[in-house]
Amino acid sequence: MKAIDISPLFEPPYVAVVFTSIRTEAEPGEYAAAAERMDALARRQPGYLGMDHARAGDVGITVAYWRTSEDAAAWKANVEHAEVQRLGRERWYRSYRVRVCRVEREYAFDR
Amino acid sequence: MKAIDISPLFEPPYVAVVFTSIRTEAEPGEYAAAAERMDALARRQPGYLGMDHARAGDVGITVAYWRTSEDAAAWKANVEHAEVQRLGRERWYRSYRVRVCRVEREYAFDR
Repeated sequence: MKAIDISPLFEPPYVAVVFTSIRTEAEPGEYAAAAERMDALARRQPGYLGMDHARAGDVGITVAYWRTSEDAAAWKANVEHAEVQRLGRERWYRSYRVRVCRVEREYAFDR
Repeated sequence: MKAIDISPLFEPPYVAVVFTSIRTEAEPGEYAAAAERMDALARRQPGYLGMDHARAGDVGITVAYWRTSEDAAAWKANVEHAEVQRLGRERWYRSYRVRVCRVEREYAFDR
């Protein structure tokens, strides 16, 4: 889940799932390994467009981009991902919010 | 722009503006001061709901929540904000993307 760059623009309409979270202190190694595994798994899902991630201290934001809301829902229901979501609630997150959004307009600046 | 917590849920439909960016190395102090000023200014705008922010190294994600797309557009057009956007392109950002999104569904977990 390391971002060395930010995602390019895609063609609206598409779906952005905004995941904001506050971590517990628990199991930093296990959490990081699961995040990396989920990143690799998401990339292989149908309709995956890209992902942006940043964490500053306990607060993290991940935005995943999908072609359709059905693609986003299929990722949420993925069996391995569902198990990691369960571990997240049990151990790794104090709080999180998930917002499923339709991207309507977008623009970019590059130096 | 320091996040000590994450925004609560609001009532869809509302607007999320997802701003992903890569910083230059330029003027960390000026950039931080402008970010803090913009945060305070945004809070006084009509339709402002909340904001989440995280930066990991050069990559930053800010998500601002607005009641309507007109509210988001009014903030983009705010005179002082427009000047800071100009400085951002000139000095502080290597790249950024802005995605204007309609939040359609949301859910939360709290321990």
